[in-house]
Amino acid sequence: MNREMSASKVLVRSRRWFLGLGAALGGALTACRSNRTAPVEPRALGAPISPYGSRSRFEKATRFLRPTTTPEEASSRTPLRETYGIITPSSLHFERHHGGVPDIDPAVHALTIHGLVDRPIVFRVDELKRLPSASRIFFLECSGNSASEWTGAGEPDVQKAHGLTSCSEWTGVWLSTLFRECGVRANGTWILAEGADACKLARSIPMAKAQADVLVAYAQNGEALRPEQGYPLRLIVPGWEGNVNVKWLRRVEVLDQPAMTRWETSKYTDLLADGTARLFTFDMDAKSLITRPSGGDTLSGPGVYELTGLAWSGRGAIVRVEVSADGGHSWSNAELQHPVLPRAHTRFRWSWRWDGHEALLQSRCTDDTGYVQPSRAELVAVRGVNSNYHNNAIQTWKVAASGSVTNGNSDA
Amino acid sequence: MNREMSASKVLVRSRRWFLGLGAALGGALTACRSNRTAPVEPRALGAPISPYGSRSRFEKATRFLRPTTTPEEASSRTPLRETYGIITPSSLHFERHHGGVPDIDPAVHALTIHGLVDRPIVFRVDELKRLPSASRIFFLECSGNSASEWTGAGEPDVQKAHGLTSCSEWTGVWLSTLFRECGVRANGTWILAEGADACKLARSIPMAKAQADVLVAYAQNGEALRPEQGYPLRLIVPGWEGNVNVKWLRRVEVLDQPAMTRWETSKYTDLLADGTARLFTFDMDAKSLITRPSGGDTLSGPGVYELTGLAWSGRGAIVRVEVSADGGHSWSNAELQHPVLPRAHTRFRWSWRWDGHEALLQSRCTDDTGYVQPSRAELVAVRGVNSNYHNNAIQTWKVAASGSVTNGNSDA
Repeated sequence: MNREMSASKVLVRSRRWFLGLGAALGGALTACRSNRTAPVEPRALGAPISPYGSRSRFEKATRFLRPTTTPEEASSRTPLRETYGIITPSSLHFERHHGGVPDIDPAVHALTIHGLVDRPIVFRVDELKRLPSASRIFFLECSGNSASEWTGAGEPDVQKAHGLTSCSEWTGVWLSTLFRECGVRANGTWILAEGADACKLARSIPMAKAQADVLVAYAQNGEALRPEQGYPLRLIVPGWEGNVNVKWLRRVEVLDQPAMTRWETSKYTDLLADGTARLFTFDMDAKSLITRPSGGDTLSGPGVYELTGLAWSGRGAIVRVEVSADGGHSWSNAELQHPVLPRAHTRFRWSWRWDGHEALLQSRCTDDTGYVQPSRAELVAVRGVNSNYHNNAIQTWKVAASGSVTNGNSDA
Repeated sequence: MNREMSASKVLVRSRRWFLGLGAALGGALTACRSNRTAPVEPRALGAPISPYGSRSRFEKATRFLRPTTTPEEASSRTPLRETYGIITPSSLHFERHHGGVPDIDPAVHALTIHGLVDRPIVFRVDELKRLPSASRIFFLECSGNSASEWTGAGEPDVQKAHGLTSCSEWTGVWLSTLFRECGVRANGTWILAEGADACKLARSIPMAKAQADVLVAYAQNGEALRPEQGYPLRLIVPGWEGNVNVKWLRRVEVLDQPAMTRWETSKYTDLLADGTARLFTFDMDAKSLITRPSGGDTLSGPGVYELTGLAWSGRGAIVRVEVSADGGHSWSNAELQHPVLPRAHTRFRWSWRWDGHEALLQSRCTDDTGYVQPSRAELVAVRGVNSNYHNNAIQTWKVAASGSVTNGNSDA
């Protein structure tokens, strides 16, 4: 039986039909481009197997590198519009460095736990890998994410405005396991975690959190941590601002008070309208974003589009994401991708029929503590606009009648 | 306050203590190497941010390339011992190609659905991406995985013996969504899925499965499919043998019977002891493996070790993994990493105290249909040893008194 189809015959018939489609998908396809393209016909043998794969040469999504005076004190942002599901590819995980990415030999690196402990210990990486391990999918968000959006539309697209959040499966040893070996003293109420980067970035974390669910991670998305994510060891502090998830972790000192490093005094504090500052604002509040369509997109015409995006909460699991196409006057529940995991990105989806008129797209999430993501006006009323940190306000994307999508934060 | 520790002082004290450790971890650390290593001291600025990251130069795990006469008709295997959690890094996902990896421009590629449908359609990749999407974490296993182990110990390590299984988060469009648009006719009981590789690999799948949960996937682990995984489009047929998850998908023809391609007649059928063959053995039966420690490892001495591995079932979710250190005479329940997802790799862990004598390590899983992974003897009694396919028997690793770990499939 010859099952080779007559490609050209099928093509002509189907393309004509495709353009008129309007049934089950409610017109989703009617606006697609009409260029007639012949299906690819396989011809020659392809490439052989390879030891460590790389992406297609046709894929161009990259992290956005924000120019800074010192290239080692900089950040790069995840192309959220071009990511799928909940796992962020490690190659596209956002970066935030204060002293560049050190090049560390794991055979030499060690983690020292000392201070208010009965037995200080130096752990080598291979020693840690032999201990009881755990893997969890958690988001990481820099608390400086979305800082451009406090006073209205700041950046043109979702990557530049909100790309300092990513989500990975992390594997490592619970810090509490190591603490059991060291014997934490009764007055050990805080820890100081210090990195092996050039600036020795160091943050204070309450002992209660350190004992509860903090990982000393050595793997990310199934393989060793990437260098820019802390290779060979980093802290994962679930749900807390990225900066405390100390990378290139070299020591943990048990203290009876916070160390008050410059990364928790001059930086990573939130200046309020009255001139006082919030300190140790660890939790990342619930937040959501529509990632597609989003700023920079152009809709090709009226019809049905899938709206999709991400929601997350540093305090637990997302229980609801609502979407609006009219700037928040009416809301509909989006579908959540299961399993919905606590302190992880949660993918949401909603089928939207665009009528061709101007629209203001928004998403708003609720977490399992009952917290509802605020509007920008609500957030600013409480926090003012002096702070660079912890902007979790609702993002608005404006769809013009032409189909072009722009940052609508000044319009809603 | 000067919080710089005196590294050398802590080191001497802790290393001595470390070597004598035997409390909470039950001696897990006592066997670690005693080389005294100074913690890394950060010195110079590191590397700047980068658009698309790569792994550390110190990481060496690669896919194992099995030599074949024709390099395009070959397979590569995931280094399961060196992977963590449940997500397989896309760069290390196993490969099995029959005509090499085609280099496809997604702007030109299309998927044609035709045959017993009311409206044949040619879908371009960008058109598919606009439709309602779904993401799921699923394993993929080649049915030829573990073929070396039918008659005893065949390969020395877990990668060479069992590395044709991997697990990813896949994103795409349900095939049922596309079928709704095409209008499948009542006599359309099978489909033929064909790839755009040089051999036009094509497999028949019953319509019931195609309508139930088959994805036309365009993304893997958060970004576009990798070329060797079918870029830009592949089928994901959850729980079914890898070969039917057709890569570089170019057409789906709706039929009233299976097409009986050579990949389901001369290949991918299971020859039984009586000379007859099982056809269309789609489901991957429940299977588990201890991945660490495993063949090639050397334990450094008696003490506690974490045993970890992977379990999966093509028929649903894993409900139990038992481990044995005495060749199956006694079993203990391993801890399962949550969430446990249907038709996905499930990570299990167990703390094992090695007494320094010879040991035979095994794992055995049970899925939510009640199916229990068989021993090799049980499997061979039913299937004989003529088949290359669907070997899901229990794997034994033999630990010698010296600590060296070898394939123990001839010993249990």
